[in-house]
Amino acid sequence: MSKKIVIALGGNALGNNLKEQQEALSHTSSIIVDLIEEGHQVIITHGNGPQVGKIHQLVNQNSDEVIPLYVSVAMSQGYIGFDLSRKISAELSKRNIEKKVDYLLSQVVVDREDEAFEHPTKPIGAFVDESTSKQLETQGYTMIEDSGRGYRRVVPSPMPKHVIELESITSLSNSGHVVICTGGGGIPVVIGDTGYQGVEAVIDKDRASALLAKEVDADILFILTAVEKVAINYGKPNQKWLSTMSIEETYQYIDEGHFAPGSMLPKVEAALAFVKAGKGKKTIISLLDKAKDALDGKTGTVIVSE
Amino acid sequence: MSKKIVIALGGNALGNNLKEQQEALSHTSSIIVDLIEEGHQVIITHGNGPQVGKIHQLVNQNSDEVIPLYVSVAMSQGYIGFDLSRKISAELSKRNIEKKVDYLLSQVVVDREDEAFEHPTKPIGAFVDESTSKQLETQGYTMIEDSGRGYRRVVPSPMPKHVIELESITSLSNSGHVVICTGGGGIPVVIGDTGYQGVEAVIDKDRASALLAKEVDADILFILTAVEKVAINYGKPNQKWLSTMSIEETYQYIDEGHFAPGSMLPKVEAALAFVKAGKGKKTIISLLDKAKDALDGKTGTVIVSE
Repeated sequence: MSKKIVIALGGNALGNNLKEQQEALSHTSSIIVDLIEEGHQVIITHGNGPQVGKIHQLVNQNSDEVIPLYVSVAMSQGYIGFDLSRKISAELSKRNIEKKVDYLLSQVVVDREDEAFEHPTKPIGAFVDESTSKQLETQGYTMIEDSGRGYRRVVPSPMPKHVIELESITSLSNSGHVVICTGGGGIPVVIGDTGYQGVEAVIDKDRASALLAKEVDADILFILTAVEKVAINYGKPNQKWLSTMSIEETYQYIDEGHFAPGSMLPKVEAALAFVKAGKGKKTIISLLDKAKDALDGKTGTVIVSE
Repeated sequence: MSKKIVIALGGNALGNNLKEQQEALSHTSSIIVDLIEEGHQVIITHGNGPQVGKIHQLVNQNSDEVIPLYVSVAMSQGYIGFDLSRKISAELSKRNIEKKVDYLLSQVVVDREDEAFEHPTKPIGAFVDESTSKQLETQGYTMIEDSGRGYRRVVPSPMPKHVIELESITSLSNSGHVVICTGGGGIPVVIGDTGYQGVEAVIDKDRASALLAKEVDADILFILTAVEKVAINYGKPNQKWLSTMSIEETYQYIDEGHFAPGSMLPKVEAALAFVKAGKGKKTIISLLDKAKDALDGKTGTVIVSE
C-alpha cells in the first residue's frame, strides 16, 4: 500500500507573497502530512513563478550588480524552502510523527543546444505596460504580450535532463526523511569546461518533477494544481472532465490541441514523460485540497501506462 | 590521519558581490579540495554578512512586502550556496575525485530568552549617513555608529543551541559527501507553539560552526579568516602572534581584552566552545590561503584542550 510519491506543488499551494506563503503553506503541509501519515514515502517539489520573477526584478532594478536568473532561482529556493520545510516539520510534530525534513538546494542539468534557448516562452515577473516593455527589449530582454493583461518578460524553458543531487535525495528519502528538492524546477545548469555553469533560463517545475520521479523510481507523480481534473474542450459547451487517460489518449488530446501551452500542456507532457518510464507508474493531476481523494481514485485525472 | 573537519569560511573566501563571489569561490574550492584530497572528511559552513544585509535592504526598500531577516538569511544561503557547491563539484571533477556535494538549507535553534534580543550588536548591511540613520531609527531599527565609517543597523546575535538538520548532515557526510550547511550561521528559529518560527536575528557563523562541529563530533574546527594567526596586543608595539593557546590562556586573553568584539572575539569564543566539547579536539584559526600549512601545524593558531 505504501507508495513512493513525488508531489509537485503549484502556485496555489505557495501563495504570491510571504504573508500568503506562510498561510498557504500551513494548509499545504497539513495535506502533505495526511499522505505521509498514511505511510507513503513523499518527495516534494515546488514551483516559483511569481517568486523568481519578483526576486529577479527587485535585485536587478535596484542594485548595482546584475543577478542572473539562475541565482534568482537559487534565492527563490531559500525564500520558499525555509517556510515549506518548517511548516511540514511543525505539522509532523503536531501529529507526533517523528520524521526529519530536508530542503536541498537543487541543480538540474539542461542541454546547451536545447532549442528553448533560441525561443524563450516562459513568462516570469510582473506585467508591465507597452512602453516599459519596449524599454526592457532594448536592454536585451524578450517580451511578449500576455493574455491581454500586459507585457511580460519571457525566458527559455529548456528540458531537464538530470537532477544533480539525485543520490542525496534518494538516500535521505530512503532513510525516512521528507525531502524537498528541485524547487522552481531546479537551478538550470549546463556542463561547461570547468564544471557546471548556470544558464539564463527557468525549468518548468512539472517537467523537472517528472524527471525527478523517474530518476528516484517513484510509483506516482502527483501534480497538485488549480483544477480538480484535466478537461478536453476546456471552457467550451462540450467540455468533458477526464478521470483517466491512457498514454495513447493523452497523445491524441495533445495533438488535437486540447491543452493550453504554459498551463495544462506542460503538466500533461510531464505526466506522460513519467508514465512512459515504466510499467505501473501513474501520474495524478488534481487540486491540492483533493489530494487524498485523488490518491484514493475518487477524483482527479490519472494518466496510466496501460 | 583522516580527520573530520568543519571548515568555516569567512568573508574573504566569498567576496562581496556575485562577480567577486564567483572568482573567490574558484580559489576557495581549490583550497578545500586540497584537504579533501588528503583524505579528510570535510563539512563546510560560510558567513553571509554583506550578502544578507544587501538582500534584506534591497527587498525591503524596493518592494511592497516586508521580508524578515530570517527569510533574507534563507535567500543568502541560496545566493551563496549554488556557486559554492558547483565550484567545489567542479574542482573535485577536475581532480577526478568522485564525490557528491550537497547544500542543505539550515535552521539553527536559538533561545527566545537570549539577552541578545534586548541588546542587538551585530552590524548588517550598508553604511548610511547620520540623517538616514535617524530615519531608520524611527522605523524601529537599532542603529550604531560603526568604526568611524558611518552608521549601520545592528541586529540581535543570539547563541546557537541546535542545528536542526544535524541528522541529515551527519548521514550525508558519513556516506562520503561534501556537505555545505549552516550558511550565514543558519536561519535563526525559536521553538514556538506551532513548531519552529523564524526570528529577527543573525547568528554568528563561527559560533554556529562551533556548535555544528560539536554536534557532528568533528576532530577539528577550522576557522578560515583574514589573518594568519591570532595576536595579543594586536596593533600595538608589543603585538605577539600566537601559535598555540590552551583553554586557560584563551580565557585569560579574553579577560585581558585582547580580542575585538565583532571581529576576533567571537572566533576565539567559538574556538573555545568547540575545544571544551571533548578531549583531543582542536580549533585552528588561520588564513584561507594557508589552510594546508595550518592543518600541518606550520602556521595558524591552534586552540587545544590540553
